[in-house]
Amino acid sequence: MMKNNITNMWRNHFILEESMLEVDCTMLTPANVLKASGHADKFADHMVKDLKTGECFRADHLLQAHMEKLLADKKTPEETKAKCREYMPLLDDFNKQQLTEKFQELGVKSPTNNNDLSEPMEFNLMFQTNIGPAGLLPGFLRPETAQGIFLNFKRLLEFNQNKLPFAAAQIGVSFRNEISPRSGLIRCREFPMAEIEHFLDPDEKDHPKFSSVADLKVTLYSGKMQVSGQSPTVTTLGEAVKQGTIANESLGYFMGRIFLFMVKVGIHPDKLRFRQHMENEMAHYACDCWDAECKTSYGWVECVGCADRSCFDLAQHSAATKTALCYSKPLPEPVMVDVTEIEPQKSVLGKTLKKDAKPVTEHLQSLGEEAILQLEKELQDKGEAVVSVKGKDVSIKPDMIKVKRYQKKKFVEEITPGVIEPSFGIGRVMYAVLEHNFRMREGDEQRTFFSLPAIVAPYKCSVLPLSGNEEFVPFVKQLSDSLTRADMSHKVDDSSGSIGRRYARTDEIAIPFGITVDFDTVNKEPSTVTLRERDSMGQVRLPIDDVPQVVSDLSGGRITWADVENKYPKFQAQETSRSDV
Amino acid sequence: MMKNNITNMWRNHFILEESMLEVDCTMLTPANVLKASGHADKFADHMVKDLKTGECFRADHLLQAHMEKLLADKKTPEETKAKCREYMPLLDDFNKQQLTEKFQELGVKSPTNNNDLSEPMEFNLMFQTNIGPAGLLPGFLRPETAQGIFLNFKRLLEFNQNKLPFAAAQIGVSFRNEISPRSGLIRCREFPMAEIEHFLDPDEKDHPKFSSVADLKVTLYSGKMQVSGQSPTVTTLGEAVKQGTIANESLGYFMGRIFLFMVKVGIHPDKLRFRQHMENEMAHYACDCWDAECKTSYGWVECVGCADRSCFDLAQHSAATKTALCYSKPLPEPVMVDVTEIEPQKSVLGKTLKKDAKPVTEHLQSLGEEAILQLEKELQDKGEAVVSVKGKDVSIKPDMIKVKRYQKKKFVEEITPGVIEPSFGIGRVMYAVLEHNFRMREGDEQRTFFSLPAIVAPYKCSVLPLSGNEEFVPFVKQLSDSLTRADMSHKVDDSSGSIGRRYARTDEIAIPFGITVDFDTVNKEPSTVTLRERDSMGQVRLPIDDVPQVVSDLSGGRITWADVENKYPKFQAQETSRSDV
Repeated sequence: MMKNNITNMWRNHFILEESMLEVDCTMLTPANVLKASGHADKFADHMVKDLKTGECFRADHLLQAHMEKLLADKKTPEETKAKCREYMPLLDDFNKQQLTEKFQELGVKSPTNNNDLSEPMEFNLMFQTNIGPAGLLPGFLRPETAQGIFLNFKRLLEFNQNKLPFAAAQIGVSFRNEISPRSGLIRCREFPMAEIEHFLDPDEKDHPKFSSVADLKVTLYSGKMQVSGQSPTVTTLGEAVKQGTIANESLGYFMGRIFLFMVKVGIHPDKLRFRQHMENEMAHYACDCWDAECKTSYGWVECVGCADRSCFDLAQHSAATKTALCYSKPLPEPVMVDVTEIEPQKSVLGKTLKKDAKPVTEHLQSLGEEAILQLEKELQDKGEAVVSVKGKDVSIKPDMIKVKRYQKKKFVEEITPGVIEPSFGIGRVMYAVLEHNFRMREGDEQRTFFSLPAIVAPYKCSVLPLSGNEEFVPFVKQLSDSLTRADMSHKVDDSSGSIGRRYARTDEIAIPFGITVDFDTVNKEPSTVTLRERDSMGQVRLPIDDVPQVVSDLSGGRITWADVENKYPKFQAQETSRSDV
Repeated sequence: MMKNNITNMWRNHFILEESMLEVDCTMLTPANVLKASGHADKFADHMVKDLKTGECFRADHLLQAHMEKLLADKKTPEETKAKCREYMPLLDDFNKQQLTEKFQELGVKSPTNNNDLSEPMEFNLMFQTNIGPAGLLPGFLRPETAQGIFLNFKRLLEFNQNKLPFAAAQIGVSFRNEISPRSGLIRCREFPMAEIEHFLDPDEKDHPKFSSVADLKVTLYSGKMQVSGQSPTVTTLGEAVKQGTIANESLGYFMGRIFLFMVKVGIHPDKLRFRQHMENEMAHYACDCWDAECKTSYGWVECVGCADRSCFDLAQHSAATKTALCYSKPLPEPVMVDVTEIEPQKSVLGKTLKKDAKPVTEHLQSLGEEAILQLEKELQDKGEAVVSVKGKDVSIKPDMIKVKRYQKKKFVEEITPGVIEPSFGIGRVMYAVLEHNFRMREGDEQRTFFSLPAIVAPYKCSVLPLSGNEEFVPFVKQLSDSLTRADMSHKVDDSSGSIGRRYARTDEIAIPFGITVDFDTVNKEPSTVTLRERDSMGQVRLPIDDVPQVVSDLSGGRITWADVENKYPKFQAQETSRSDV
């Protein structure tokens, strides 16, 4: 329920606000697609295997842990420590050969049982399967949702009436066969993502709505700061774009929108920073990337990436499928351009080449200007040129072609759009929200609760009869029914246990508002109930008929608790004493 | 967007309304789980392979198509036709042996190229992969979401304060490696589902809310009707449960809720029926099952299953994991029960059996009453009994155990809950909704549109400036901003083209309401705009500031178009003539 609330908020905050196109693509992906995108070849980590038990470890993580242990150990020779200090910052850069050397040099063994380890080997992180009964079509489970959007680019552009910029978004599950999954929701083999691909003219990276986020203060940790040992600094996004720390307005705009979203779901702004990727840690498709990192008990954890993927993906798929994935950019004014074209002499070609004539003709017509000029020169110089068509060498003679030169009016320019990609790990965001909102009542560390924003909390309110008295039952039912009609998720707790104990139980599962039915509800006209707010434990008394609207307005952020306290009389609670819990 | 609207409606209609527990389990599933559930062994179709090309076909589909062709062919001998007519109704019952015989007898060849076919072979429909880098843990992509709920049964029961009945629900993607995927969204290898597991006492299948659906009229096509050649009949659910056509109130209640949901998302009630599964088509886990079928151009298509899975799944997982998956049912009154228990004589066991003593003791203590009595008899008769513990035969002597008999007060009874499972194929529901809502304007079959309910439609309204006049721009922006603030998805169409052409375009993508900004909007005070309804093409004139609330109320079903027409003045449109489109 919490995940669903977060994704719905995401949908409203990004898709609705920016009129993005939402798509839902398959997770099973033919291998060809991920070959074209580069994932089949490059989406790998290095691992080492315990030579006796077969247990696997991620090489870089293991080497780092080993070096940290050596550095902490008094018995480690100073010379070895110096090496560790030298290697530590280079860890992300080590290739297979270098990792192999360091493992040998520092004598890394299995941390489980001290067994010998294999040499580091590349391990592709994608899950493989076979699609279809014949077993002939290999496929992978997608490692990111983005590729589905790139594959549908042509249809999306058309749907957007062939205009740039536009964005497509997708919420869905991705899969990575992590060598060592760990840390709860932080490193899972199957995880929900929410991704945006914002397609734009690579020469026009300004953003019309940038001014709406320009004054936001965010913590930035640029590559330059990291290299020079500076601390992250707080600055406005406007300033950062102006100084070139953030490359362009579009990237800056999305960083601002990410910041606003994170705060809205319950991330504490002082535990949120944007860290720029260093050259060596950039994914194979990115040309600039900022991670929104949240501070947790595991350290700073990447929860959102905001990458400038440039034109990489569309260019790759275009090349693999021989299909133009372009945007026809209207030129400010039509221009005259020189055209050089081959005009195949069909009768000569047909007579000479017979059934090869058609593919050779197609090949000749597909040549670019440079290739045409080269062919023309060869024919002039040698009276013959050899072209390779479908793996067959074919001799071309001067009488087979004419080269035409003329001028043409051009109205548009074909460009491959650039892509800005904000990519959310929903599970990681959820985990950080839980950590940032875990709280204890002052002076009572047994009494813990989650201060989740009401919009994120799975249940919006609880309904608690004061006791098991039969007279309360119809009022509990009436409240539950009216809350259901108002689409307000709620939990009835009519179990035994003092009201204080039950409040504590609902606090633990983050229920922001609690309604209590008591004897005044039954005996007085009009019926009133108690409404309690989780964080302040403040209580008011209000008519039972007002409840659905008030809870709905509070949960939707249309009114605040202070508004409610102003409107309704305070109710004195007796829940604060420990003995009651 | 349409899928998301449908799943959100589903969540409100089922999860919120019944206070179900929503879970989100993984799609990657260790093979052991699907071994226990029976899917690894039984979730298979028969297929045949083209012996030359390797192309695969589903055996029953191919045999059926072949027989239909034979029956339709004048040249087929009457004797062969008689056989086809005999086999046709038995198709679902044929096992591998029988399929093999019929394929030979009727001379079935590949429909693609008349090549010879292999014998029918079983083909498991699950996608297999390996989990983890060592490749040692085989896993499958889940073929249904239900298993995740069964695996979490103990925690869910606990969360429900150990009370029955309760239901858990899950919305997610499942995978089946269909031999021949086809028919768009109807038979996909990857498809979204929404499933409910309603756990209940198998002896108490009444439902407290059954009366709320008892008067609903639905079309039922029972197994009996199908066997006896009767037509489906319309009846109330109350009558059907009373007469035993539907086995119990809980099953009947969910069928009623399914019916209400389907109508709400746009299924036409006269193209919706419930068909009971025949004995031979029931899944391996079901003891009774009704399909909600929708009539489409592909015939009647199963869109929702509503199965009584009895105690099958929990019993299977309980046996596989040796963990009780039970509910402690309070007895109306405590009862005295006879207890027969083995009291191991530890010192004798220890002395005689040494290191085997512990496992043997555990084994003896785990024996049920029947096994104890048998053991006791053997010891009396032969002075020895042999038990097998961890694959080792151990001799038990009379002095090693005592058999204790006493009476005990019992307050609860351990029972394995039964399960009612409504299971929605969201893609199929979507497909049927699209077919049922595809319409043409009277007298103009070029002008097609989708009459989707506003709550299902991806965009709630369009915003159309009458022309490209610059004066309209600020009003279009104001409307778009205020609709965004009201969480109303909308589409601005400021492209050139007559207003009629643009209305037709928004009709085609099911936008239920259209707002037009014209010169009166610009020139008059207060600003008004035109609001148009898709199905009736009726138009009213209303103040621009009223728009977000009116569109929101219309889309949420809080007011009707008739209400709007009563409140605001009619506007005369000029869009009906064909020439305009």
